[in-house]
Amino acid sequence: MNDEATRKRRGGGGAVRRAERSSVSFETAKYIERNIPNLEILNEEALEIIETNAETVLAEIGVNFVNNPGALALWKDAGADVEGERVRIPRGLARELCKTAPRSFTQYARNPARNVEIGGRNLVLAPVYGPPFVHDMNGGRRYATMEDFRNFVKLGYMSKWLHHSGGTVCEPTDVPVNKRHLDMIHAHMTLSDKPFMGSVTEPSRAQDSVEMCEILFGKEFVQNNTVMTSLININSPLTFDDVMMGSLEVYARNNQACIVSPFIVGGAMAPVSVAGTLTQVLAEVLAGIAYSQLVRKGAPVIFGAFVTSIDMNSGAPTFGTPEAAQITYGVGQLARRMGLPYRSSGGFTGSKLPDAQAGYESSNSLNMGLLSGVNFMLHACGWLEGGLVSSYEKFVMDADQLGTLHSMAAGISMDENAQAMDAIREVGPGGHYLGCAHTQANFKNAFWRTQVLDYKPFETWVDDGSRDTMALASVRVKKMLSDYVQPTLDPAISEALSAYVAQKKASMPDAFA
Amino acid sequence: MNDEATRKRRGGGGAVRRAERSSVSFETAKYIERNIPNLEILNEEALEIIETNAETVLAEIGVNFVNNPGALALWKDAGADVEGERVRIPRGLARELCKTAPRSFTQYARNPARNVEIGGRNLVLAPVYGPPFVHDMNGGRRYATMEDFRNFVKLGYMSKWLHHSGGTVCEPTDVPVNKRHLDMIHAHMTLSDKPFMGSVTEPSRAQDSVEMCEILFGKEFVQNNTVMTSLININSPLTFDDVMMGSLEVYARNNQACIVSPFIVGGAMAPVSVAGTLTQVLAEVLAGIAYSQLVRKGAPVIFGAFVTSIDMNSGAPTFGTPEAAQITYGVGQLARRMGLPYRSSGGFTGSKLPDAQAGYESSNSLNMGLLSGVNFMLHACGWLEGGLVSSYEKFVMDADQLGTLHSMAAGISMDENAQAMDAIREVGPGGHYLGCAHTQANFKNAFWRTQVLDYKPFETWVDDGSRDTMALASVRVKKMLSDYVQPTLDPAISEALSAYVAQKKASMPDAFA
Repeated sequence: MNDEATRKRRGGGGAVRRAERSSVSFETAKYIERNIPNLEILNEEALEIIETNAETVLAEIGVNFVNNPGALALWKDAGADVEGERVRIPRGLARELCKTAPRSFTQYARNPARNVEIGGRNLVLAPVYGPPFVHDMNGGRRYATMEDFRNFVKLGYMSKWLHHSGGTVCEPTDVPVNKRHLDMIHAHMTLSDKPFMGSVTEPSRAQDSVEMCEILFGKEFVQNNTVMTSLININSPLTFDDVMMGSLEVYARNNQACIVSPFIVGGAMAPVSVAGTLTQVLAEVLAGIAYSQLVRKGAPVIFGAFVTSIDMNSGAPTFGTPEAAQITYGVGQLARRMGLPYRSSGGFTGSKLPDAQAGYESSNSLNMGLLSGVNFMLHACGWLEGGLVSSYEKFVMDADQLGTLHSMAAGISMDENAQAMDAIREVGPGGHYLGCAHTQANFKNAFWRTQVLDYKPFETWVDDGSRDTMALASVRVKKMLSDYVQPTLDPAISEALSAYVAQKKASMPDAFA
Repeated sequence: MNDEATRKRRGGGGAVRRAERSSVSFETAKYIERNIPNLEILNEEALEIIETNAETVLAEIGVNFVNNPGALALWKDAGADVEGERVRIPRGLARELCKTAPRSFTQYARNPARNVEIGGRNLVLAPVYGPPFVHDMNGGRRYATMEDFRNFVKLGYMSKWLHHSGGTVCEPTDVPVNKRHLDMIHAHMTLSDKPFMGSVTEPSRAQDSVEMCEILFGKEFVQNNTVMTSLININSPLTFDDVMMGSLEVYARNNQACIVSPFIVGGAMAPVSVAGTLTQVLAEVLAGIAYSQLVRKGAPVIFGAFVTSIDMNSGAPTFGTPEAAQITYGVGQLARRMGLPYRSSGGFTGSKLPDAQAGYESSNSLNMGLLSGVNFMLHACGWLEGGLVSSYEKFVMDADQLGTLHSMAAGISMDENAQAMDAIREVGPGGHYLGCAHTQANFKNAFWRTQVLDYKPFETWVDDGSRDTMALASVRVKKMLSDYVQPTLDPAISEALSAYVAQKKASMPDAFA
């Protein structure tokens, strides 16, 4: 930027800045529409065994709905056997109730170009969710703040291959627990125009999320359309607590989507075997989604699964492992047999740094997410240290790798141009293709291009400072944050949202636990 | 080791040392027998288009057999149209000739427990091949020496998940070009007891490889059994040079296996499109394997493919990319339709360091290798910087990840123990599985365990020095090399091998180019 432009930007009025800003738009790829098959690792017999066993679990063992007399009443009315907080569900009932859930739904964004279709052959990518810490190369590991939260929303907005702004991209620990959901939702709504997730930490916060959406999208629009997809964890094994279910009830009643997701570290919250874990996951999701349909028939839901393995020596959770991959593939098959959208996770790693371990484990989980038929992939970028840390560098590294999923999923073109017979004729034995007509016509879009990774000659790389991937990513983080331009928003809506947040915050004392 | 033991080892005679050594054995997992499906990304119509186009390439464009009148004569006799060095092969002829190649073959190792079956649903993993440089964390990047070569053979011997000792694990640049094959083969034969690859850099060196095998295995055994699998690259596009074909002729005549492998950087040696590259790969392999069968009907071969994409800005090859993955999946389907064993590559990366880029790209290529039905995976560990560098740390990092392929390929057990219904009953809603009977009975073998990656709590990791994966791998490299014990070998054979190498070396002047 030259001096005059700098002066104008600094000194110019709001109108000038708005005009400048509205001209900037960051490209976001459409959600992935798969043109390649899924990997089906379980055969029909295995799937039937798991489905039968899951029905046995529901009928004979049952699930607990804790502190939730309303839920128990709904289950009783539906024909379940309720004894205390234990709900035993006769064979077939849960599956039957799940049938009213839509096979696919649209989650609307405030920018219609960013709407996503969740279900079918589609894959929607969303960033890391939940870490209390952040890490960057210069600052190291530290508690996350609201400034970090805003930075991650900005990075997500600017990431071409990321379709969704996510939810708790990190926990803003400098904002009171009972108020931070307001700042988080506000950040997603104003700093990005991609779809996002609502708060689930209290039913009242889910309600606040709905009300803020009513300001952003209009009340009628929200009642008729899905504008949030929120994460409802099941307290595995087989337990549905009142906080999570209370939030699910708010969202389901308001026609907003919930991911109903067992949270399992294998060997701790589920059996140490893959088949046993699949059985428990299916039983839990059947019960959870059936319940969502008791609350409101037709409420949009996603068959979720957060599953990792465990290091049986230390008890530490492990990520990107083959057993977790097998479970992810298997759950995909179970979800498809129910005709429900499927959520899993990518970008998983247990590493403390965005290093080789992070790369191996993240690639393992990203690839299996694509091939297991996932429709909504949470944690697709930025996850570090078993989910304790949101990493700035890993966010942009993973987000870059998400481009490979897009290319892979597109499948192989077989049109005449792709067959390239003229090129093979033109070049012939012993020639080379670099200058041939077919290469010239196609090279720009032939291969996926990284924005982070390095392919320079060794000597150039040394001259540039012998940087590893973390260092290269750090440069990109800084550039993206410095290039960021806020998407435009109707000033009246913007003011109404700020007023809502201010009023809500003023209405309650700070709480930090 | 206590002082007395140290003294004994240092001071003891040969008999004592031999006794100690023969008692040590390093575990090697059996080659992978897949119990999961392959990913089939091309449909029947696409496969037929590629097969038809490949026949068109052979019939109308043809291939060159350079400086090889014998090959041209064989092709003419077989019914091809030979014009100068150009061989045009009528439709169907090459495919027909390929039918005499075995669908699967055993490569024998001097330790029968290490024999591998190449073909069918099996996957044999072999290390990096060809780099002139090595890299380790402390010494950085430097020209490879014979000492490095021996070290990599030792690491391969001690790597549980690696089935094959490979070939040129690095180029020993301190040994004359015309003699280094002798030291390399000698190292594989004496420092490891896993199967290995022969020399291909001159037909005479292939012959030396055969003769050394005759010493190790016995002359008759070698004539009747396959004891080497060697790498014959095709000079893409569509060119078969006399050096590589001369080596193929030696091996085929001696019933030894060849990997017939187009060497392609997409956009340079093949069309810039996936479908076009698949067509050229198939045409080249059809011609190459047909030729092997003209040399000797029934000679064991592998359908090879070394394919990477290119950065069209810089011309640098790129690795672990989606287009290379699509080609690898597609070639697997083409090879299976021919009923031939399939070779591809894993552990690919363009990175200069064993960092996150190396992890992402290597995992991408290792996973696709497993799911594309590869039977022989070269470069499965140790590859760095686009194949210019063999990395000590990456060798053990990759070799560790190869364990995940074993677990993944094993598929999902569905027996009663794996169904774990008793465990789910025992634990019930809200309990945990850590102490239950099923977990106690199964936890030891439930999950794959890393020997390199870190899952410690953050504080412990900091106390241990905040090491990244490269640093953790460096520790393991040192430990493995210090724990290494040479496998026993009949002293008479050992002496005969050394004498052969000494005599051969004495028979020619040094050459360094």
